[in-house]
Parts: sequence; structure tokens; C-alpha cells
Amino acid sequence: MNKYCFGVDLGGTTVKIGLFDPEGSVLEKWEIPTRKDDSGNNILPDIANAILGKMAEMNITRDSVTGVGIGVPGPVDSDGVVHRAVNLGWGVMNINDVLGGLLQLPVKSANDANVAALGEMWCGGGKGCKNMVLATLGTGVGGGIIAEGKILTGAMGAGGEIGHIHMNDNEQEECGCGNFGCLEQYASATGVVRLAARKLASVNDDSVLRNGELSAKAVFDAVKAGDKVACEIAEQFGEYLGKGLAMVACVVNPEVIVLGGGVSKAGEVLCEYVSKYYEKYVHFASRKAEFRLASLGNDAGIYGAAKLVLE
Amino acid sequence: MNKYCFGVDLGGTTVKIGLFDPEGSVLEKWEIPTRKDDSGNNILPDIANAILGKMAEMNITRDSVTGVGIGVPGPVDSDGVVHRAVNLGWGVMNINDVLGGLLQLPVKSANDANVAALGEMWCGGGKGCKNMVLATLGTGVGGGIIAEGKILTGAMGAGGEIGHIHMNDNEQEECGCGNFGCLEQYASATGVVRLAARKLASVNDDSVLRNGELSAKAVFDAVKAGDKVACEIAEQFGEYLGKGLAMVACVVNPEVIVLGGGVSKAGEVLCEYVSKYYEKYVHFASRKAEFRLASLGNDAGIYGAAKLVLE
Repeated sequence: MNKYCFGVDLGGTTVKIGLFDPEGSVLEKWEIPTRKDDSGNNILPDIANAILGKMAEMNITRDSVTGVGIGVPGPVDSDGVVHRAVNLGWGVMNINDVLGGLLQLPVKSANDANVAALGEMWCGGGKGCKNMVLATLGTGVGGGIIAEGKILTGAMGAGGEIGHIHMNDNEQEECGCGNFGCLEQYASATGVVRLAARKLASVNDDSVLRNGELSAKAVFDAVKAGDKVACEIAEQFGEYLGKGLAMVACVVNPEVIVLGGGVSKAGEVLCEYVSKYYEKYVHFASRKAEFRLASLGNDAGIYGAAKLVLE
Repeated sequence: MNKYCFGVDLGGTTVKIGLFDPEGSVLEKWEIPTRKDDSGNNILPDIANAILGKMAEMNITRDSVTGVGIGVPGPVDSDGVVHRAVNLGWGVMNINDVLGGLLQLPVKSANDANVAALGEMWCGGGKGCKNMVLATLGTGVGGGIIAEGKILTGAMGAGGEIGHIHMNDNEQEECGCGNFGCLEQYASATGVVRLAARKLASVNDDSVLRNGELSAKAVFDAVKAGDKVACEIAEQFGEYLGKGLAMVACVVNPEVIVLGGGVSKAGEVLCEYVSKYYEKYVHFASRKAEFRLASLGNDAGIYGAAKLVLE
């Protein structure tokens, strides 16, 4: 067993890098900017230089490093080939080969949402389980499936795209993906705002949500304060997400479902609204799945990336 | 590489057994009855005797046998523990240990629907792909997910229970599982009959389906003859199954979707009705998944079981 591995979370603005020991302790953590100019051609050399610089600084030799894992904002197949990462300006490229060549170290890569799921399984909300679903409720709804301790990658690296499960035949607004009625349109931060705006327009009841700016945080703060309209919005949110996760569970039969992303900052109240509807709609074989909150926050990516090379 | 392996498909009435070479050729194939009396305690000894008898008959020694795979009608976890197989009278039991002890050979077990999926991947409709979904459209709707060439087992062995994905909030009839509105209620053989009976009751148009007994075969025969009402029923069927498989694809991103079971005998017309709605509802990353018909029929189980021990 080697002493070190690196986990890289490649985002559209910054690259987070962590140096880990094999038990999951972060020894060093830092960031560099993501240089997207020149079709993103500087990104991997910048990452390689940052890692090689850290190794020199700490007198870490190559033979004490298991490898470098990296999470990428785009679909990455099981061979490490990214199929266009629009945010970075990248076309088709084998990341494992290119970054591995620069570093002269083993490299493994995967989609960033899937890598976050692996991180939460290793050291976060899903710790101790091997079959897990992560739903990341942010601007959109991302997801990652862990089966037998490994990422479910899928044929083209698009496994775990649970935000685009079709939930509503009557939706008139278009999802960012081009379809209508995706889970993401109701269970993301913007989805909660959509549900709230529609509810407020359809009822005359007083609500604290009629004052100030609508946000997912405002809705769940109002739920905690007992606001009746906010509670109705949370029921709708819970039914969409609970039903969607029940569908996911019929496919992958998870032991634990972890809720992460900005919306999950609402805390345990979120799990209550979601699990109620999950249990209503799911097949009995998956009814006992446990709902937990993600615990690694923005570090899930570097944890999961490091774990990629320890598998 | 050893010369032989056995694949066992344990059903409620008969046990099918196949002797295979490692390339997937069936060398021998036979059946024995499933003795369900005495809480099913005779079933595994009967199977062991059948296999040991065949080995003696053909002068096959233990060291030329890779192992014995077995598909079981119930949830089997990744350690080989079956968690109640109601049809067989079994409680909780580690099949790998019990049958392995009787045979003094390596044994691997899995759920029968999942094993059928593995068989179709190895030698049937999914040949050549590693990421596949099998939907078995029989009395119910069973399923199996193959990810990176292996069965997606799930926490309790209930991976691939796609027949119980929730599809319809307005269903008044109860599914066998206790829920309302499961995919199985519309996409199984009995589901097609349900859709047909409802359609015939709701319209006044002439249809050949008003004469004779309703069945999934009668409906698709009428579709091929151009019967208007039958075609409308097939559209409804296609929308339910296509939408359900689109949900599955958002989770596992398959390369190929194989349709099997009695309903799939309708042939290519089935794929046409289903793929049209699949493409409408699926996330773009999975839109190119190919629809194929299962090709191993009732032998999928013995093929998949044999493949279990070759992995």
C-alpha cells in the first residue's frame, strides 16, 4: 500500500486538489484557477504542474503515490474518455492517458457528480455502505449511483443522470436538457422556486413567502417557522423527489440515499418530506433504504477522486 | 481455463440444467422436477445429485469444472444469500455455501431475472455489449441490469425490479406488490389485456378484439392486421414501457435494451412502439440506446447462470 494519493475536482472556475492518505485523511488541500482559454488546453498541464510542485515541496516520490483521481464536469466513460465537456471547451479526449502522460503516474477519471457520490460513500453521508444513491440538489439535480462500492458509469459515462427522469406529462416549461417535466424542474433550488411561485399564484393564503425574494432557503426556513403555504410547497417537492428516488431505487435497490447540494442545507426536515413519499411509491424490497444528508459539502469531489485510484 | 461449467435455472415447477464450455456452447441440457414439499429442502440435494450424476456419466472430474451458477426465483444478495423465495418454501439461506458444500465445487447464485439478463448479454440479444437492460414482459414485468458486464445486484438482491416503477398516479387497481400504478400493470401480458379491456370499453369502434379471448398475442396480431383500436392499445403500451425504460436509462445509461418474455414474441413491431416513446422521454445521453429482442427464450437462465461462474 502506497502512502499517498491525489484527488482533483475540476470545476468551471477553480480546480480543487487534495492530497490524501489511503484511509481518507486530507493531508493538504488547495485550489488553482481553471484556465478555460485556448479550448481548455492549459487545464491538464496546470493540474500536472500543481501536483508535481506539491510532490517536490513535500519530498514525495512517484513510487509512494498510488495515483491521481479526477472528477470532470462532463460524461466520462469507463476508459477515461470524456465526451465533450462544454464548460471547459473540451472535445473528446482520454483524460487518463493525457494527464497520466504529463504526471507519469496512474490516473483515473470519472464524471464529477458520480465522483462526489463515491466521496460521500467513502467518508461522508454514505459511509459504511456499498450500494448508495447520491442526489445533489443544487442549481440542477445531479446524481451518482454506487453499486458494490463502485461508480455506475454507464455506456457513455451518463449513469446517475437522475435529474432528467421524466416526472410530469403536463409541464409546459422546457428543461435545460430540452425535455419537459424532468425531476430537476421540481427538486433543484430553481425547481423549489418554480413550485413556490406556482403555489403562491394559485392560492390566496397569507405566507411569509409573499415578502422578499423566493429561494429554496426561504421556503424551508418558512417551513420550519410553520408557514402553511411553505409546508404545502415542501409536500409537492417531497412528492416529486420521493417518487423520483423510488423509481431509481426500483432499478438499483440502494441501502442508503444521500441528499446533498445547496437545497440539502435545509437539514433533516428535507429527509422527512422526501422519505414519506419515497416509502409510498417504492417497491417493498427497497422500502428500508435509509435517507441521510451529505456531509462532505464541496469537498466530496476531491474525496471521491482520491478514492477512484484506491479501488 | 477449465473445460466445463454448469448453469442451473431453478423454477417453481422444473429445474433446467445446462453443461457449457467457456465459450458459451451448450454441451448437454436437461430438466428435473422442483420438489417443493418439505419446505423445499430437497431442491438443492436434487440439483447436486443431477450434476454429480452427469459428471460421473461423462467422466468429468471436479478439477475440469470452473463451477456451478444458479438463478433463483427470489432476491439473492451479492454474498449468495437468498432472502425468502416464497415459491420454493425457502427462508433465508446462503445458496453458495449449501449447494457448494453438497457439490464440493464453487457455486455462485443470483436472482433469476438478473441471471437471464446476464445470459442475454453473453450469448443473446445483448451480445457484444457491457451495459444492458433486459425487460422481461411475461405474466409480470421482470428486469435485469448489466453494468460493465456484471449483474447490478443491489443491497438486498432486488436490483432491476423495473416492473414496479411507479407510472400512474390515477390507477385504482392494486398491483401484486401492493402498490398502485406499477409499470407491470400495463407492460406485462396481463397489463396489455388490462389496457385492451379498458380501451374497448371506452370506444365504440369496431375491432377484431371484440371477438374471442383478449390476450397480448391477440392485440399484437390485430396490430399487424391494421386494426385501429389494437394500434391505439399498442400506443398506450409503448408509451408506458418506453417512458419506464427512459427512466431506467437515466439511472444506468445502457448501450442496449433487450425486450424478452412472452409479449416480446410480437417481434420487431414491439420495439417500434416502445422506442418511439423511449426517445421522447429519455435524457439525450441515452437516446442512442439500441432496442433488440431477446433471443435465448427459456434458455436465458441457464446461459446466465453458467456465465456467473465465468466472470
